[in-house]
Amino acid sequence: MLRLLRHARRHSTSSSSSAAAAAVPLTSPAFAVFGANTGVGKTLVSAGLVASLLASPSPSPSTVAYLKPLQTGFPDDSDARFVFDRAPALLRRLRLAGGGASTRLVASNHTLFPSPAVDPLPERQDTVVNYGGEEGVEEKALVCRTVYAWREPVSPHLAAEREGMPVEDEEVRWLVDRWLAEEDGGGEVWKVLETAGGVASPGPSGTLQCDLYRSSRLPAVLVGDGRLGGISSTLSAYETLLLRGYDVGSVILEDRGLSNDRFLLSYLRKRVPVHVLPPIPEDPKDDLTDWFSESSSAFSSLKDSLQSFHSRRVQRLNSMQRKSKYLLWWPFTQHDLVPVDSVTVIDSRFGENFSAYKVKDKTIVPQFDACASWWTQGPDSNLQIELARDMGYAAARYGHVMFPENVHEPALRCAELLLGGVGKDNGSTAIEIALKMAFRKYACDHGIIVDSEKDIRSEGSVHFKVLALNGSYHGDTLGAMEAQAPSAYTSFLQQPWYSGRGLFLDPPTVDTSSAANVYVSYISHQLSQYAMSNNSEHIAALIIEPVIQGAGGMHLIDPLFQRLLVKECKNRKIPVIFDESASELLGCFPDISCYAKLMTGGIVPLAATLATEPIFEAFRSDSKLTALLHGHSYTAHPMGCTAAVKAIQWYKDPSTNSNIDLDRMKLKELWDSALVNHLSSLPNVKRVVSLGTLCAIELKAEGSDAGYASLYASSLIRQLREEDNIYARPLGNVIYLMCGPCTTQDICTRQLAKLRPRYVSFFYTYCVCYG
Amino acid sequence: MLRLLRHARRHSTSSSSSAAAAAVPLTSPAFAVFGANTGVGKTLVSAGLVASLLASPSPSPSTVAYLKPLQTGFPDDSDARFVFDRAPALLRRLRLAGGGASTRLVASNHTLFPSPAVDPLPERQDTVVNYGGEEGVEEKALVCRTVYAWREPVSPHLAAEREGMPVEDEEVRWLVDRWLAEEDGGGEVWKVLETAGGVASPGPSGTLQCDLYRSSRLPAVLVGDGRLGGISSTLSAYETLLLRGYDVGSVILEDRGLSNDRFLLSYLRKRVPVHVLPPIPEDPKDDLTDWFSESSSAFSSLKDSLQSFHSRRVQRLNSMQRKSKYLLWWPFTQHDLVPVDSVTVIDSRFGENFSAYKVKDKTIVPQFDACASWWTQGPDSNLQIELARDMGYAAARYGHVMFPENVHEPALRCAELLLGGVGKDNGSTAIEIALKMAFRKYACDHGIIVDSEKDIRSEGSVHFKVLALNGSYHGDTLGAMEAQAPSAYTSFLQQPWYSGRGLFLDPPTVDTSSAANVYVSYISHQLSQYAMSNNSEHIAALIIEPVIQGAGGMHLIDPLFQRLLVKECKNRKIPVIFDESASELLGCFPDISCYAKLMTGGIVPLAATLATEPIFEAFRSDSKLTALLHGHSYTAHPMGCTAAVKAIQWYKDPSTNSNIDLDRMKLKELWDSALVNHLSSLPNVKRVVSLGTLCAIELKAEGSDAGYASLYASSLIRQLREEDNIYARPLGNVIYLMCGPCTTQDICTRQLAKLRPRYVSFFYTYCVCYG
Repeated sequence: MLRLLRHARRHSTSSSSSAAAAAVPLTSPAFAVFGANTGVGKTLVSAGLVASLLASPSPSPSTVAYLKPLQTGFPDDSDARFVFDRAPALLRRLRLAGGGASTRLVASNHTLFPSPAVDPLPERQDTVVNYGGEEGVEEKALVCRTVYAWREPVSPHLAAEREGMPVEDEEVRWLVDRWLAEEDGGGEVWKVLETAGGVASPGPSGTLQCDLYRSSRLPAVLVGDGRLGGISSTLSAYETLLLRGYDVGSVILEDRGLSNDRFLLSYLRKRVPVHVLPPIPEDPKDDLTDWFSESSSAFSSLKDSLQSFHSRRVQRLNSMQRKSKYLLWWPFTQHDLVPVDSVTVIDSRFGENFSAYKVKDKTIVPQFDACASWWTQGPDSNLQIELARDMGYAAARYGHVMFPENVHEPALRCAELLLGGVGKDNGSTAIEIALKMAFRKYACDHGIIVDSEKDIRSEGSVHFKVLALNGSYHGDTLGAMEAQAPSAYTSFLQQPWYSGRGLFLDPPTVDTSSAANVYVSYISHQLSQYAMSNNSEHIAALIIEPVIQGAGGMHLIDPLFQRLLVKECKNRKIPVIFDESASELLGCFPDISCYAKLMTGGIVPLAATLATEPIFEAFRSDSKLTALLHGHSYTAHPMGCTAAVKAIQWYKDPSTNSNIDLDRMKLKELWDSALVNHLSSLPNVKRVVSLGTLCAIELKAEGSDAGYASLYASSLIRQLREEDNIYARPLGNVIYLMCGPCTTQDICTRQLAKLRPRYVSFFYTYCVCYG
Repeated sequence: MLRLLRHARRHSTSSSSSAAAAAVPLTSPAFAVFGANTGVGKTLVSAGLVASLLASPSPSPSTVAYLKPLQTGFPDDSDARFVFDRAPALLRRLRLAGGGASTRLVASNHTLFPSPAVDPLPERQDTVVNYGGEEGVEEKALVCRTVYAWREPVSPHLAAEREGMPVEDEEVRWLVDRWLAEEDGGGEVWKVLETAGGVASPGPSGTLQCDLYRSSRLPAVLVGDGRLGGISSTLSAYETLLLRGYDVGSVILEDRGLSNDRFLLSYLRKRVPVHVLPPIPEDPKDDLTDWFSESSSAFSSLKDSLQSFHSRRVQRLNSMQRKSKYLLWWPFTQHDLVPVDSVTVIDSRFGENFSAYKVKDKTIVPQFDACASWWTQGPDSNLQIELARDMGYAAARYGHVMFPENVHEPALRCAELLLGGVGKDNGSTAIEIALKMAFRKYACDHGIIVDSEKDIRSEGSVHFKVLALNGSYHGDTLGAMEAQAPSAYTSFLQQPWYSGRGLFLDPPTVDTSSAANVYVSYISHQLSQYAMSNNSEHIAALIIEPVIQGAGGMHLIDPLFQRLLVKECKNRKIPVIFDESASELLGCFPDISCYAKLMTGGIVPLAATLATEPIFEAFRSDSKLTALLHGHSYTAHPMGCTAAVKAIQWYKDPSTNSNIDLDRMKLKELWDSALVNHLSSLPNVKRVVSLGTLCAIELKAEGSDAGYASLYASSLIRQLREEDNIYARPLGNVIYLMCGPCTTQDICTRQLAKLRPRYVSFFYTYCVCYG
């Protein structure tokens, strides 16, 4: 183990910020002991809990593993040694009191990486203790371990600096993950990890304890503070843990005669069980034997409530697939094609990774979210926590605030930022609004409406159509659907009211790109012909997804074609709508643009429709009837605007987003070009599109294997999910990987590299089965 | 002052939980000093800041008011006395160092409500001190005050209990509000409020400090902790303040040689300025004179950064109206009819009240949100904070999680709760989905679709229509609009694609209610006639807003009519959609129901469409093409589901919602019936509707005064906003008050009572001007 770990240390040090979290088995209960402050008795609680676990009657854990990842003041202070020393003695007293079969305890204590300043170097400690009579010997093990130890009794970030032993977060996480994955013999194992200092005390790199251990999201035992002011520090620490997405299994604190426990019991009622310990003797010469005896019922009830917390958690997770099939109706999903055991149970998310619970293995597995949760996954793990804090703040400050004739800071700030330019995306509501805006503008420009009180529709003389491209997709509400060409989404079956109110042009994809004059004459011919043959019908808006058509199959449209299309429409005074703005790629600007999805970092829904001043002017008058009568109770809601402000700034700032190319102030290429080339040359691959956060692979397919309803790629998808920890979804015969704007090139490369061997074997399998 | 306050104490004690917050002037900077823990030096910081303020060169504050609302250990400990004693001495030293004109300081210290156990009773202290030479005498005042004082040096909640002087939160808030509103002479005033204990220490009623003072949301000075573990407690305290919606103006902490300040400076960079104080002498005999001298530059920089924080805040608030007119496009609003100075600047919200900034008075005024922010305002001030904590947790745990084929705890829990029955509301996206569901079911039941691959639309032989009521409103996306009868919202001007695909019946309102057989024959006749005269057109869904038609003008529909309509449709196998479910009021159940708005407590958008099993069955097959291909990236997003779970439980639980009638387990009548009757008998009132959280008043109006575009009620609305602190919006000639499901009857009555005199005077004015 040690050699493996030393190797790991070097390995993970060199591979920088690769947040490749490992699986967390739920076969063993595991908890992290956090403190409301330093000096509140975390180690006493750990020792008491460990002893209580070892002493509990069968079925009790056969092994208890205790880990102290970060220790300072070493070797004078060693929490692991304290647990190793005291737990056996406590166990003896508990066994004496409780009876039961005779027990043989094998205990060890071990320090992996002492700093160069540590003197003397600690030796591994081993002991075997026998309790009780002869018959029915029960074997138990206690494995105590310290990972990093520094000499000075200061915060790890200072000790690491002063003693020349820096440690990166990924090292700590890697080692904790390995420890969690370790299996010790056959019986039940419990794991107890003791953090350093308070919940928000810095680790060696400066990362706070609560952030350092977030990836495994162990349920917390919070050791509260019984002193004056301790209610405040306990509740604040509790809130800090919640703001990192932890579940707190129990609170336990010393009784210092101030009734802090009584207050906390009442305040935390229905949320967290609170346990009380007798006053800890202040005399340093007291060996605490009596105190531990007095505390045994508190530790026993702590143990019981943690056991019950763990059982309920696993039980609930085990039941979720079945319940979901019974209670939920998923969009875009034929339920009969989803076997109950293929439902993904998502326990949490940390940056780019889902934590998916595998029922079969009772294990939580990190899966790279390769769909970027439908274009909404923006945050890395740091931004996620920032957003959490901002969401708490915005909810507490604003709750909900309606928008018309009002202004609040997040809405204003968000508008300022958006009008300063941003990156991405659509939202069907934004599209519906954009169309209404465009039509009004067209009507004004072309003298179609004179009298705002008269409804010209009844005369049947004017019809508005939209100019759009085949294969485009703008959302699922009726207005947004009318603006797209017929497809599986628009059939009578799906939307009986769909009629397709557009002139839909065939866009050239980049593979077939040709000269500009061919494009211009095609566009011009189509528009003129339409105008000639449809007297009462006006093309009153152009709507396009710039460059990439997503839901239509990840097609890359020739930007030159779109640029010329926009130019032609502007000449004809047809308002131009961009569904997601990529103005810089097209080199031209829309009259109206729609944003959603990624804009809030994917944390809450918010759509924005931006318009130029001339569009706005078309709605102005002295009558409310000409105003834009389209809204939503949640228009510009403060939570969404707050999230958008944080996310937009984060994406654009090179100090938070390392993917920003400082010279050109745009996103670096994220997908390794050698790997992309290699994939595109594989025999069954038709094309590979890699642009920005997207890498899409279209498989060669014909007949029923092609198109939206195809199941062609589903076995590959299953393999990616089950074996490579990549959560991907097929889009017919297209497979895509999508990452967030802050996802490192390193992570992208790692996912793409996993794809290569899969493709080779998939094609082989496929040929065997079908061909 | 004292007498007034004593009276106030009695008054506010008797009026229970009436959260009638007062105005907070921003003409004076005011800050609340919070502690990361007890014993971190809040009072030293207060005294140093006060002295630094008094000493600062002109334009400096002429008065500094210091308030200690809650003091325990009194009179041995008295933070106000400490400030009163030490600030003048500090000021002398600072003046000696800084020079400037001669100064005359008038200082006082005063305790309002000592507990019966306090002995001896404190006397008011007054002093006058002169500094510097003869010429140019500057007058300065220092007013120190303690409000409640208990003898025992324990937490206020214990002291209050033990000494028999309980104090309710509303008393404390009322007194703080009065103190904030006090004007002292002409010059600039600064106000410093010192809290008790740590940020989350309980006040006398048990309410935490951060919650107790939330209504005035004073910007915070957070006194951090320089001791071991102090980084953690400082950051946790900071997060607790953020989770209550506070802005933290500055952090200041003692240097204890652990470089906590260096870490915090780096961590809080770009967020909050951090100031460092020299180590505080531990010798209790040290009078701190030297320490204060050494600290003067830290206090001066604290003062400067608070000054700058305040100026930036006011500047930004002053600019928001102007910017909003330039940058924002409000829905349902004719911008030209909104004068820039009538834009409401919303600084925050606390339960039912907006905190609106009045540019003219530089004051933040609480306004009752009588629109319930368009049916979305659910939380009282407690639920708001609960939701904030949950939002932080859900964001940190989940971020965004896509939905299809996945399950996560909030989505599952939310589905479980919704299927167990809930209260309210629509959402146009939910409606679009509901229509698609209903049409498919209709098609199946009536044998219209046989082959899922064939699109029968092209043959032009089948058209689906919806059965709906005139005056109904289901949202602004095209599909939702098609299901409503023509109105101002559907004109060619607003939505050129609208055609109105429905058979729209005239619903009888309760005033015209008549016998059941008249209804039945009307409904049956309409449906039969439609079927006869439209061969290819099918009524394939019924959609109704149960009981109340909102946007259509707050009409109360006869429940008997709707019940019979539903029955008739069920007989004809026409699927029934309820836009917001009020099944218990109608006494019948829909096939599909739509929820949104209030469901999440108004904190984030989320819509849910619930369907019965037979509806779901109509989409099942072995082809993806028959699945429901309508979705949204944010379908069942964890933030929304988490909020919904908390809000739904909160509304339904009598222990959190005092409006639940325990006997009947439904909402009590919230609007005082005598007041409602009185209003309805006023000469210009046509009708008053009061049901659940809504009380709507229709004014008698004719011609252009009636209907959606009417400006008839706008002067009344202006008066309500400006003078009565009621934020209402007109709906044509209808004025309505809406509250949240947890708003107390007391608050409702108070708002309604304000309305009565307004109506009388409004009608008078109106008659003079127009009649």
